[in-house]
Amino acid sequence: MLTTHPFDDDKLREECGVFGVAGAEDAAAMVALGLHALQHRGQEAAGITARNGREFYSHRALGPVAGNFDSAEVMDKLKGDYACGHVRYSTTGAGTLRNIQPLEADLASGGFAIAHNGNISNALKLRDELVRSGSIFQSTSDTEVIIHLLATSPFRTLLDKFIDALRKVEGAYSLICMTPDGMIACRDPLGIRPLVIGKVGDAYIFASETVALDLVGAEYIRSVDPGELVIVTDGELRSHRPFGDTHARPCIFEHVYFSRPDSIVDGSSVYSVRKEIGAQLAIENPVDADYVIPVPDSGTPAAIGYAEKSGIPFELGIIRSHYVGRTFIQPGDGVRHLGVKLKHNANRPLVNGKKIVLIDDSIVRGTTSLKIVQMMREAGAAEVHMRIASPPTMHSCFYGVNTPRREKLLAAMKSVQQMCDYIQADSLAFISIDGLYRAVGEDSRQDIQPQYCDACFTGAYPTPLTDQDEKEQPDQLTLLNESAPTRDEPALAEKVG
Amino acid sequence: MLTTHPFDDDKLREECGVFGVAGAEDAAAMVALGLHALQHRGQEAAGITARNGREFYSHRALGPVAGNFDSAEVMDKLKGDYACGHVRYSTTGAGTLRNIQPLEADLASGGFAIAHNGNISNALKLRDELVRSGSIFQSTSDTEVIIHLLATSPFRTLLDKFIDALRKVEGAYSLICMTPDGMIACRDPLGIRPLVIGKVGDAYIFASETVALDLVGAEYIRSVDPGELVIVTDGELRSHRPFGDTHARPCIFEHVYFSRPDSIVDGSSVYSVRKEIGAQLAIENPVDADYVIPVPDSGTPAAIGYAEKSGIPFELGIIRSHYVGRTFIQPGDGVRHLGVKLKHNANRPLVNGKKIVLIDDSIVRGTTSLKIVQMMREAGAAEVHMRIASPPTMHSCFYGVNTPRREKLLAAMKSVQQMCDYIQADSLAFISIDGLYRAVGEDSRQDIQPQYCDACFTGAYPTPLTDQDEKEQPDQLTLLNESAPTRDEPALAEKVG
Amino acid sequence: MLTTHPFDDDKLREECGVFGVAGAEDAAAMVALGLHALQHRGQEAAGITARNGREFYSHRALGPVAGNFDSAEVMDKLKGDYACGHVRYSTTGAGTLRNIQPLEADLASGGFAIAHNGNISNALKLRDELVRSGSIFQSTSDTEVIIHLLATSPFRTLLDKFIDALRKVEGAYSLICMTPDGMIACRDPLGIRPLVIGKVGDAYIFASETVALDLVGAEYIRSVDPGELVIVTDGELRSHRPFGDTHARPCIFEHVYFSRPDSIVDGSSVYSVRKEIGAQLAIENPVDADYVIPVPDSGTPAAIGYAEKSGIPFELGIIRSHYVGRTFIQPGDGVRHLGVKLKHNANRPLVNGKKIVLIDDSIVRGTTSLKIVQMMREAGAAEVHMRIASPPTMHSCFYGVNTPRREKLLAAMKSVQQMCDYIQADSLAFISIDGLYRAVGEDSRQDIQPQYCDACFTGAYPTPLTDQDEKEQPDQLTLLNESAPTRDEPALAEKVG
Amino acid sequence: MLTTHPFDDDKLREECGVFGVAGAEDAAAMVALGLHALQHRGQEAAGITARNGREFYSHRALGPVAGNFDSAEVMDKLKGDYACGHVRYSTTGAGTLRNIQPLEADLASGGFAIAHNGNISNALKLRDELVRSGSIFQSTSDTEVIIHLLATSPFRTLLDKFIDALRKVEGAYSLICMTPDGMIACRDPLGIRPLVIGKVGDAYIFASETVALDLVGAEYIRSVDPGELVIVTDGELRSHRPFGDTHARPCIFEHVYFSRPDSIVDGSSVYSVRKEIGAQLAIENPVDADYVIPVPDSGTPAAIGYAEKSGIPFELGIIRSHYVGRTFIQPGDGVRHLGVKLKHNANRPLVNGKKIVLIDDSIVRGTTSLKIVQMMREAGAAEVHMRIASPPTMHSCFYGVNTPRREKLLAAMKSVQQMCDYIQADSLAFISIDGLYRAVGEDSRQDIQPQYCDACFTGAYPTPLTDQDEKEQPDQLTLLNESAPTRDEPALAEKVG
Repeated sequence: MLTTHPFDDDKLREECGVFGVAGAEDAAAMVALGLHALQHRGQEAAGITARNGREFYSHRALGPVAGNFDSAEVMDKLKGDYACGHVRYSTTGAGTLRNIQPLEADLASGGFAIAHNGNISNALKLRDELVRSGSIFQSTSDTEVIIHLLATSPFRTLLDKFIDALRKVEGAYSLICMTPDGMIACRDPLGIRPLVIGKVGDAYIFASETVALDLVGAEYIRSVDPGELVIVTDGELRSHRPFGDTHARPCIFEHVYFSRPDSIVDGSSVYSVRKEIGAQLAIENPVDADYVIPVPDSGTPAAIGYAEKSGIPFELGIIRSHYVGRTFIQPGDGVRHLGVKLKHNANRPLVNGKKIVLIDDSIVRGTTSLKIVQMMREAGAAEVHMRIASPPTMHSCFYGVNTPRREKLLAAMKSVQQMCDYIQADSLAFISIDGLYRAVGEDSRQDIQPQYCDACFTGAYPTPLTDQDEKEQPDQLTLLNESAPTRDEPALAEKVG
Repeated sequence: MLTTHPFDDDKLREECGVFGVAGAEDAAAMVALGLHALQHRGQEAAGITARNGREFYSHRALGPVAGNFDSAEVMDKLKGDYACGHVRYSTTGAGTLRNIQPLEADLASGGFAIAHNGNISNALKLRDELVRSGSIFQSTSDTEVIIHLLATSPFRTLLDKFIDALRKVEGAYSLICMTPDGMIACRDPLGIRPLVIGKVGDAYIFASETVALDLVGAEYIRSVDPGELVIVTDGELRSHRPFGDTHARPCIFEHVYFSRPDSIVDGSSVYSVRKEIGAQLAIENPVDADYVIPVPDSGTPAAIGYAEKSGIPFELGIIRSHYVGRTFIQPGDGVRHLGVKLKHNANRPLVNGKKIVLIDDSIVRGTTSLKIVQMMREAGAAEVHMRIASPPTMHSCFYGVNTPRREKLLAAMKSVQQMCDYIQADSLAFISIDGLYRAVGEDSRQDIQPQYCDACFTGAYPTPLTDQDEKEQPDQLTLLNESAPTRDEPALAEKVG
Repeated sequence: MLTTHPFDDDKLREECGVFGVAGAEDAAAMVALGLHALQHRGQEAAGITARNGREFYSHRALGPVAGNFDSAEVMDKLKGDYACGHVRYSTTGAGTLRNIQPLEADLASGGFAIAHNGNISNALKLRDELVRSGSIFQSTSDTEVIIHLLATSPFRTLLDKFIDALRKVEGAYSLICMTPDGMIACRDPLGIRPLVIGKVGDAYIFASETVALDLVGAEYIRSVDPGELVIVTDGELRSHRPFGDTHARPCIFEHVYFSRPDSIVDGSSVYSVRKEIGAQLAIENPVDADYVIPVPDSGTPAAIGYAEKSGIPFELGIIRSHYVGRTFIQPGDGVRHLGVKLKHNANRPLVNGKKIVLIDDSIVRGTTSLKIVQMMREAGAAEVHMRIASPPTMHSCFYGVNTPRREKLLAAMKSVQQMCDYIQADSLAFISIDGLYRAVGEDSRQDIQPQYCDACFTGAYPTPLTDQDEKEQPDQLTLLNESAPTRDEPALAEKVG
Repeated sequence: MLTTHPFDDDKLREECGVFGVAGAEDAAAMVALGLHALQHRGQEAAGITARNGREFYSHRALGPVAGNFDSAEVMDKLKGDYACGHVRYSTTGAGTLRNIQPLEADLASGGFAIAHNGNISNALKLRDELVRSGSIFQSTSDTEVIIHLLATSPFRTLLDKFIDALRKVEGAYSLICMTPDGMIACRDPLGIRPLVIGKVGDAYIFASETVALDLVGAEYIRSVDPGELVIVTDGELRSHRPFGDTHARPCIFEHVYFSRPDSIVDGSSVYSVRKEIGAQLAIENPVDADYVIPVPDSGTPAAIGYAEKSGIPFELGIIRSHYVGRTFIQPGDGVRHLGVKLKHNANRPLVNGKKIVLIDDSIVRGTTSLKIVQMMREAGAAEVHMRIASPPTMHSCFYGVNTPRREKLLAAMKSVQQMCDYIQADSLAFISIDGLYRAVGEDSRQDIQPQYCDACFTGAYPTPLTDQDEKEQPDQLTLLNESAPTRDEPALAEKVG
């Protein structure tokens, strides 16, 4: 079995996208569109919950939004003018239908639905305490602890119960919740995962990225601030700051790879940042070559920036198939590198005899980089230089990003020269951490209190990692496989994000 | 219902791709890969026939190759070291399972399978004669007339019967056939549709495009010549010229749009030709602008060429979704231009306030061009100039390309200025027919005997159009809807190609 | 749309069957067989939970056991030597997947699974209290209250918690539960619904009916006693009597219709009881006729008994189709009585010109009886007399039986003579309540403390009906539609049984 | 894998049922009902072709009628006031979709559809000749030779062509055909397979059995005579006798087992004949027993007859499951005789300690009889006597009945005493051939020219067996596996019937 499935890609994977509509006709149909625009943030499962008065209606399915949320039969059931939805990565299997968000519960106050992007880093500990006192969990999702904390909170109002629950959880969360009265959107005090506010007509929209606002024709208003809790009821939006002033540290990898280039993340155009990363890379790591060639599509904006800055022509030396995510049976006589070829094909007549510089966004395991370098050489390239639009990825993420365990991270195990040897390139260079901060508009990284969460590059985790600590320190490699579940090695408690 | 399905695209559509393997272990698994590489030539249905000794095994399915030809259950049935396959566009529906190629028949000589790219332009007349003498057709495919002509031919050997059949048919055909003894590949005397020969190990490969050779690791040998008939038996390839010397007129639109940019068509790199078209376009039709922006992905190589020649920066002003071919339910409050937005999104921060020149490969109905221009303006573009990498498409194709009926072709109904007004661009220009011939390496078009079939631009059809003539002249618009079936208006005899 | 689906039948419907295996290799495969033998007790959904050590594995599906539990893929996942399962009637729909039993929970003590036949008559009240204190329900099933009562019980051991929970619930329950240590089977103090113990090899089996023991080759040991709680751990069976001595009142309708004729229920052969009902009916209500004809198949044993006692020949005047449960589209020219004809056809040559006595088990709405009488007349019957093997069904059941609301019960609204007129029979008679008690081996009904639950005939409900009382009295017809959900009118809280 | 699928039954299997409607609104919906009533004649596949003016619409599917022909989506496509349909047994698999009838062809005269019950015994020879002259077959069905004979017939009118074709075929055929002008129904000169005419309103109905007329509310008019060809056009029915006077020999096994008991076959009530067979059996083979017990359901009418004649009480000692046709996974600890138990369960309390006489319709392989005798003994029966309502089945059928190859027929290999030993009964007896003829109303069998086809009992085949003769004589056992395809050993040319 061979596959071009993105999970086998040599990439970090954002695990979730969320989208909510407060106060629009056919809210669920808008959510379906919004989730489709966020499909790159999670293709394994999708769910939508709609609210009509006090009645909640949900549909959840494994697989992408399209195909699962395109029939009148399904959509007609999702009645109401409020709706929220979720796309996610995670392991497949019938059992996990229960883990597909939005999660939903019948509380004494009525229905409650929650969609979560991020990861609660003390979820196992909280769950254990809740079960001991009689709570029964429906899923293995970290998100469900929020609901049980809410249900058992001694506070009186739903809002107070909700804030009480948030105060107990650690980690990263951008949440969209629905109650019988309205919609709540909030972001953890550091604002690790993104969340934006839009407006179309009288309706408020919440989304992980602005590209989803574009698709439904909504105007981009602003980001939800780190630590902000926003409530929409009766067409009015009110803002709360239950954590007071906080120092933001949004994820810098959203700019490198996760977000769509046409999105605006925390105020910056992702496309411009990526071009600027390419330009910084050209300054920091010049090379003598005939062509600048992007590894499509994620390397393309940086490659354009690199080409402009260096003056080397930008050319399409690798053609990407539009029919990705496919599986085939390997013929007996062994087509070489079939996995990568199903996605990418060398533009042989162009590349033959030329010195090329390849631009990619990151190196994770290095397996794909190796195959692409080999593919370029088989197509006749004279020299193959690799330039990477992020610093070396050396640490696992515990905030809702699917990372391999640390010993699978090439940069955690090897020096840059060893990495270059491994991928068989003529040269290899990464942008520096300060170069990356420059590309996002900072002068440099403030090491005392960094402006972004860059833990995957630096190991500087901005929150406690309680569930990890109860086992051992996250950087002790031997235990990391239990703490950072990957597709091939599912952990006991599934992460959803 | 809204959809991003390619059929609703404003494009001409190649109707078929063919692929054959003669003499390799797991031939059917290689064909599945080859067809996947040709998926852009037809996504509606796919079929593979394998041959093991005298036994033939087939599987046909609606939908793409992947998903239908990826299970061991299906592939294990397709036993043997010879196999051929076909991808196609055409109308859906259970009944049309019979029209999915390869078509297969039990002849007195044993099994026979045929996969056809092209269109027989006197198929209706021939079918009528055959039915009168007792032949019973299984499909509504034009290809089936070849089989019945073969079955009822008075000649003695299968090869003589086959040539006898070909002499009776008119139009375009690139064929891959399997017999109990071997494989036959041939191309009509004008070589209208492409067909190439490759080799991997001892096996010969036939394919519509070289990109399919790349995927299975085969070496590109050469094109099948127009009017050539090639037979592989017992590992030997022999060439026949049943039509003697012929004057080739391959389809020029393969270079403009149909073929993948990484293919070599009739000896030329498609990517290089497209870049050169862009360069010629920049020479013929310069414009003062801030950015050159491709309409992705088909306009990209020409845009790179245009940018290089003009010195205007190449930028990604339109981001294409990876999740195309999707359908959604339109929300009640009417998202504008949803159809096009599902596929393309404006890169707003880039485009805002800029003068841009958009590069697209062609304009068919003009509906998509209009929506893209509007999308650019809504994103704040100051000026939107459109440059097209082919001459105006004014005539229907009868050689295996899905074209709307002539009155739906914008260029058949309007002047260039009227087209510009229709799509609401600030300016619009097409490459000239001679510019196009220059880009493919000719000095100019030889009007007496053109080097290519360019009937869609010029109306100069290189063969008789017998079935059309029996109704009326093809350029008489009122009857064209019967002769040139389109997706929305199915004709009596379905075209397969 | 016409259907022969049993739900449209004019019958009361047992809502559930349960089956458990304690201590056998491939326990889940045995449960699948046992549930298949109990399929007549519920065809809408089925579930199996297996336990291997402390790991629980479940599969639940809409539809019958066969087709859902016959693949190696499904069954291989249901590992372990303990397993229990459930079949049920209820409304369909994706949402109700959560209501399919066995219900399962992760308690502080480990996994817990429960399969329930019956109905908790104070479930709504208990649920309300539990939600107020922070319990979150996964389903709308009455059974789930038992789990939450257990999870939040202040007692220390699981057994004490379980008994604590049972003491709070009212109504009918035959339960099979699995814990990390073993299996618990119990029956409510009145033993309203049946439950038997069997043994095969070293394994203990629990089942709703003995017919399920026969299929898996198990020996019938005895019934679980009313109010008895039986635990199997480490191959040992221990019996508990948490309710002390109780006065049994098992459901008498199990003998009339619910149970299979080849089952032994509470010690009696169902077939013999039904034949004896037929004999009593012949004594109480003789008729002059040519043939005794059963309404197949439920009327057959009583018809044999009636024929034997009366000396009138037993003949098959109605042939039942083997292909029931089917739906068709009504042709335009209106086939009469198509619904009933899809299931039953008159044996015209036999019936024509004859005086016949039809034997059926019960009359609920009367709609089917009417159609069968009409069908017999159209086939030429000279006289049609109807004899019913149970007293008039006048009251709804609240103990796990699907009954129409009371005003739809023909006998609740009409006298016997009016019923006879309605179904257009020449005469109609029912067995008396004492005749029925005689047939089950009693001298007569002890009105002070009846030996059986016969509330559907007499209205004498043996337990409080708390949820009903909170609305109004059950016999006040206008509210019954809320309390006794029927297929067409789903109630707020779904019943599972 | 264990199954209760009827194909594993120890029964001969009628292979087809046909149904046609000429001149009624929603003809296809009526055909769906008619085929459902004939479902016992073939459950593997079903097809319906409808005609609206000159347009033909078809739908074919593997599996039963219900489920495949119950959706508005399917039925709305089957437009028109003429329709015919077919149910069949045969091997499964995607490839055989082409073999599902009605077969359909576009002839020079327009559309043509044919549904066939029976088997052409010189089909292979005719097919060979047709292929040599250029005919291309779509299926492996014997029926298709009729269409090609028709298409290539030199006669002028369609009727003359059709009769010309029939004169060339040998064997058994009851046909329903549709042409652009009307409907043709005909029966081979011996009338081997049944076919009846009915009327509802102005519409004529044709059906394999009268039970299908009952379901659509049609009046039974008469049988189509052997050798008769009936045409309905414009509401008029005309009869032709292209073979002149013929001597009828309809299949006697229709009375024994194939037809429904509520059908009238060639003028006789099947139920009455079966009761009379039971009575003759009681006279010929009396036994001292406590109970007469039918093997349900096919043995029931004969058992009633046997009980009446012998005075021994009729009792239900075997209860049949309503949920047949199911497959399960065998648990590890080996439930005995699970296959038969899934269908039948002993009524233990009844049978225990009693002497019983079992009545079954026939013995084919004997495997089921053995298991049923064992099941009765395990339930405690003191003596088990078996009485069979047909003579020993000693020869294969070549006229559209699925029979095992001869060496698998118990009666072909063993004496009656050996058969009795094999099935472990206390005694075994069959009705005599003359007893069977008496039961159908004849004085005795006329050996010179028998009144029925009884070849399965006597070996007296009423037609040439050309395809068999070309291999060898049918009674030479070693070749029979090629000539009489059975489910496990598919022959080269598949039989449909």
